[in-house]
Amino acid sequence: MSKNNALARLNLIQDHLTQPTGSIDLANERSNASFNVEHMYWLFCGSKEFAKALSDAYQMIQRDPDLYIPGGHSFDMTQPQQRELVQRQVLRYQRAHKTLKDPLLRRALEIAMCIYSEAFSMKTYVHNTLFRQSIEFFGTKEQQDEWMDDVLNWRIIGCFAMTELGHSSFIRGLETTATYDRIHDEFIINSPTLTATKWWIGMAGQTATHTVAICQIIIDSENHGINWFVVPLRDRKTGHLLPGITAGDLGAKYGRHGLDSGWIQFSNVRIPRKNMLMKWSKVTEDGKYIPPQNPAIAYTPLIGERLTVLSGTQNALGRALTIACRYGCVRRQSVDDGQIMNYQTHYVGLVPCVASIYVINIVDSVIKIQWEELIKQIHTNQAEFLKNVADIHALSSGLKATITWWGSEMFERCRRSLGGHAYSAYNAIGPAIGDWGVTTTGGGDNFVLLQQTARYLISSYEKMVQGKQLSGSVEYFNNIKQFSKTLQYLFPRLTQSQEDSSVTWNNNQISLIRLSELHSFRYCLSEYIQGISKYQNSIPEFQNLCPILTKLGQLWSIHLIYESLKEFLEEGYFGKEQANIVKNAYFGMCKKLRKEIIPLVDAWGYPDFILQAPLGKFDGDVYKGISLEIYLEQVYL
Amino acid sequence: MSKNNALARLNLIQDHLTQPTGSIDLANERSNASFNVEHMYWLFCGSKEFAKALSDAYQMIQRDPDLYIPGGHSFDMTQPQQRELVQRQVLRYQRAHKTLKDPLLRRALEIAMCIYSEAFSMKTYVHNTLFRQSIEFFGTKEQQDEWMDDVLNWRIIGCFAMTELGHSSFIRGLETTATYDRIHDEFIINSPTLTATKWWIGMAGQTATHTVAICQIIIDSENHGINWFVVPLRDRKTGHLLPGITAGDLGAKYGRHGLDSGWIQFSNVRIPRKNMLMKWSKVTEDGKYIPPQNPAIAYTPLIGERLTVLSGTQNALGRALTIACRYGCVRRQSVDDGQIMNYQTHYVGLVPCVASIYVINIVDSVIKIQWEELIKQIHTNQAEFLKNVADIHALSSGLKATITWWGSEMFERCRRSLGGHAYSAYNAIGPAIGDWGVTTTGGGDNFVLLQQTARYLISSYEKMVQGKQLSGSVEYFNNIKQFSKTLQYLFPRLTQSQEDSSVTWNNNQISLIRLSELHSFRYCLSEYIQGISKYQNSIPEFQNLCPILTKLGQLWSIHLIYESLKEFLEEGYFGKEQANIVKNAYFGMCKKLRKEIIPLVDAWGYPDFILQAPLGKFDGDVYKGISLEIYLEQVYL
Repeated sequence: MSKNNALARLNLIQDHLTQPTGSIDLANERSNASFNVEHMYWLFCGSKEFAKALSDAYQMIQRDPDLYIPGGHSFDMTQPQQRELVQRQVLRYQRAHKTLKDPLLRRALEIAMCIYSEAFSMKTYVHNTLFRQSIEFFGTKEQQDEWMDDVLNWRIIGCFAMTELGHSSFIRGLETTATYDRIHDEFIINSPTLTATKWWIGMAGQTATHTVAICQIIIDSENHGINWFVVPLRDRKTGHLLPGITAGDLGAKYGRHGLDSGWIQFSNVRIPRKNMLMKWSKVTEDGKYIPPQNPAIAYTPLIGERLTVLSGTQNALGRALTIACRYGCVRRQSVDDGQIMNYQTHYVGLVPCVASIYVINIVDSVIKIQWEELIKQIHTNQAEFLKNVADIHALSSGLKATITWWGSEMFERCRRSLGGHAYSAYNAIGPAIGDWGVTTTGGGDNFVLLQQTARYLISSYEKMVQGKQLSGSVEYFNNIKQFSKTLQYLFPRLTQSQEDSSVTWNNNQISLIRLSELHSFRYCLSEYIQGISKYQNSIPEFQNLCPILTKLGQLWSIHLIYESLKEFLEEGYFGKEQANIVKNAYFGMCKKLRKEIIPLVDAWGYPDFILQAPLGKFDGDVYKGISLEIYLEQVYL
Repeated sequence: MSKNNALARLNLIQDHLTQPTGSIDLANERSNASFNVEHMYWLFCGSKEFAKALSDAYQMIQRDPDLYIPGGHSFDMTQPQQRELVQRQVLRYQRAHKTLKDPLLRRALEIAMCIYSEAFSMKTYVHNTLFRQSIEFFGTKEQQDEWMDDVLNWRIIGCFAMTELGHSSFIRGLETTATYDRIHDEFIINSPTLTATKWWIGMAGQTATHTVAICQIIIDSENHGINWFVVPLRDRKTGHLLPGITAGDLGAKYGRHGLDSGWIQFSNVRIPRKNMLMKWSKVTEDGKYIPPQNPAIAYTPLIGERLTVLSGTQNALGRALTIACRYGCVRRQSVDDGQIMNYQTHYVGLVPCVASIYVINIVDSVIKIQWEELIKQIHTNQAEFLKNVADIHALSSGLKATITWWGSEMFERCRRSLGGHAYSAYNAIGPAIGDWGVTTTGGGDNFVLLQQTARYLISSYEKMVQGKQLSGSVEYFNNIKQFSKTLQYLFPRLTQSQEDSSVTWNNNQISLIRLSELHSFRYCLSEYIQGISKYQNSIPEFQNLCPILTKLGQLWSIHLIYESLKEFLEEGYFGKEQANIVKNAYFGMCKKLRKEIIPLVDAWGYPDFILQAPLGKFDGDVYKGISLEIYLEQVYL
């Protein structure tokens, strides 16, 4: 190092001493906003009113000693401590929920708590959604009357026993049996093998008093396929396991340490016949099986489950990206002591992630309404429901898989962008990656789900070739003259092959999965365009956001094209000059939006206590945020 | 489900009950081997003799209560318990090491322990390599005489204090100062700011009694750049921190929980002048600074550090892939109850990973010899050393980055291939991903390292254009008529730009990084070809392995081409028909090698107790391996 360089460096060190630059950097970044950040927060929350309620809910949490995590985070807690913390939060939340009169604030508190704690989110989700909705959806009026009041008041705590050690994605392969005993008017629930053990059942480890369990119905040695049964697990007062139930905790995990994931074995457990949920299929007292009108009904709740990844991704990645982007604008490095966010690798890595969160947010709001409308048809117009459910089923599978894989990619980008600091649990990203991991393999393995979507696409293509008009997510098939060559290539191979069809399918599996990914991404884009077009005619505060939302959508589009350049080149849509134009346009757009990256993450509105990461502090004073006090306990051996 | 299907399914369940298929499946897979698995194990270990020693070492560990992890794994241990376990292993290993007469077994025991425990590996690496080699490499004869006996006998335990909270990859930016006090003939070591705190220092948390610390030398207010200093940290008997030293543990982390990563602050700590390591640069008693002949010397130990990723990747990923491949051949799923390894997505995902471990193994053995030869030149022929070191420096940076990123990709493929099971810590892959994370951001951030390589490539290209002959890893530049268009495109932009050169560099950063990746992968391939050509003239046992090794190299080559199809299409090397041929050839080769995937992972020789994962059991009886006993403690609340 030359003497001058050394002196220049020393001066910089002096500056560090007297003037931390982080706060100034973020203030500068914030002055670049071309849009109103508060209005964007309203839009991100769905409305001004809900945004206000969410802010109030955050404040409630921060001030409530039973909701707030003591010390601000749980990264140093043992698994039992985390379990206790989360259960305390659940109970407190339940009580708060009852006393709150304002339905908006009630809903906001639930959402804020789910953003705050992944384990809280899973526990309330298992009971409030998986367990409760199973009873609502599969139970008769009488069954709902019997259980719902206890469920809503958490006097019984329910879990959802589908997955087994040996099978999960292949539901027909599940082994647990419900054998009808005509003499006692009872079902006998049994796990015939080790692989029949119910596995990865959230809250089965310690908390649940009841479960809904999916079982093969056996009557007179004949298997009538699967159905749902309510099975009590633990004594509601003592918590002791009931006779015939063996259950336990799955122990150490990759993440979600606060959730008691567990296993259950049934040893000839007798339950009354009426514990079979009988809205769609029935077993009569004399042992007659009445099948459902349409077996597809059984899978309906899984669609709703898959769609929850849209909000889950916004929350989990929204927080990680807020931390990563703020740190990237505060961290100064190298000879010029510049912000690392100005490196091309850095902003091209992060800007498209930020854009994608906006896309997912708006797609989520659009699809949520569609799904709620559709669900209503179950009771009002079943024929119409059955006509439409296949499309949203294929769509939900594709979205769940593509968005969770993209979420993993975004998490890893965030982690790497923090350099060595992300290796500390206290910057929240490492633990969040562990929590996230389950999304790509659980709730339907992504490889399996994308093949469900592919099957739907191939059969839709077949219909189009036969001259039928398509609707729903494949409506665009009708209007495409020069159709995707991937699909043109795959279709004859799959439909006219001499081989066993499953062999042909398998030999094209990678292409089929890619096809489903592209379809899902395309869908997001078209819904995004529709979604933001609504804001053109909305309140002025939202109208004014349309220019930046359009830019974000454009960036996301070109990101998808850039990431699919191989396909575009292979299929001859682009030549090499065009590929180069795409690349330069992509990098250029990332560079432009990089200027607004801080306002864009600020608008998601995550308070510092929710981020749980000194490096993501709103005020940019990140190193002061790294309190050595948290480490000082261990200074002396 | 039709009645017949249901009955067929029931029969399968019965089969499950009476006849677990895993052991039969793996026996069948093993009968497919086209090569001798034991001989491949010898080759993988480097020699028959070392293979034998490694097997003996594994047995020693399994039988030694201080080396073996009680209960077989540490996944349920708290951080303090893990720390204690690893320190006990280190002490026991040190004692065993002294008593073992056979140098081969001694070396094998160290390697086996490093494979067995990531934290053990890091602790011994920090002391035995980073700390010890710093003294050997930067210390004078007298300094070595003073410290080496204590170091070799672990009477002092050393750590390596380079990284600071504010800077790491940009070494010149480090802030810790060593100010010379002429009156007392001492240096005053000081951390002037919070950001100067030494950070992520392995063993600084609890264990180390000494450190080598990199500091800016200040004499009479003038900065003479960085050098290494030996600084005592803790009392060797009581373990208490010495006056002026504040140090602590970094607490909860993403992985490597058994390693006490720590931080150190120096508050005007006085050390004798002779504690500056003075082989290359000196400070005389009267305060005169004598610079090193070549400043590049200071970075030499980092080259060795980077090359260790080659062996680290084999071990970490070798274990994960053994687990993933065995499980993939045992797990049966879907209507036909087939092995999931037969799915195209599954084997195309895993087979190239297995091939890459063989490539890395052979490249490691080649480059290790080159590096050892080069290191000798430091003492025998310094001019020659300095001539060659730039090439291996650029190479080590490129290899470290590309291979650790590929390692992350492989880990995620393994994790996803296990479905939900990988979410359990007891299948070892989740915790291993946490351990692995540091490799991509620590030891030189990958983005920074690849730019070092890129700078070397651009300057080598410049030399070639000027008509100079190149050697080393860029020798192939001499012979290429139609040169990589990426490089042809980049070179004029970087050398003839009107802009500030750092701006031009940054605007092409993504292309430059890709260039370095391709160069590094290409290097691996050429070294692999050279490496296996040696076996053609080796013992017959190794000659017979050449056909399968050639196939693995071919698969790895086509994998690289497939993964770079975008570049090949963009640069016009391939048209779309050729891209299609590549794709089909790639999938076809994966399908062929899938048949030998079990013999190929068996040959790495990891015993079950090293894998620590029931799903990876050698005998394939994976579900019996999942002992519910480990969960039974928590059956009753």
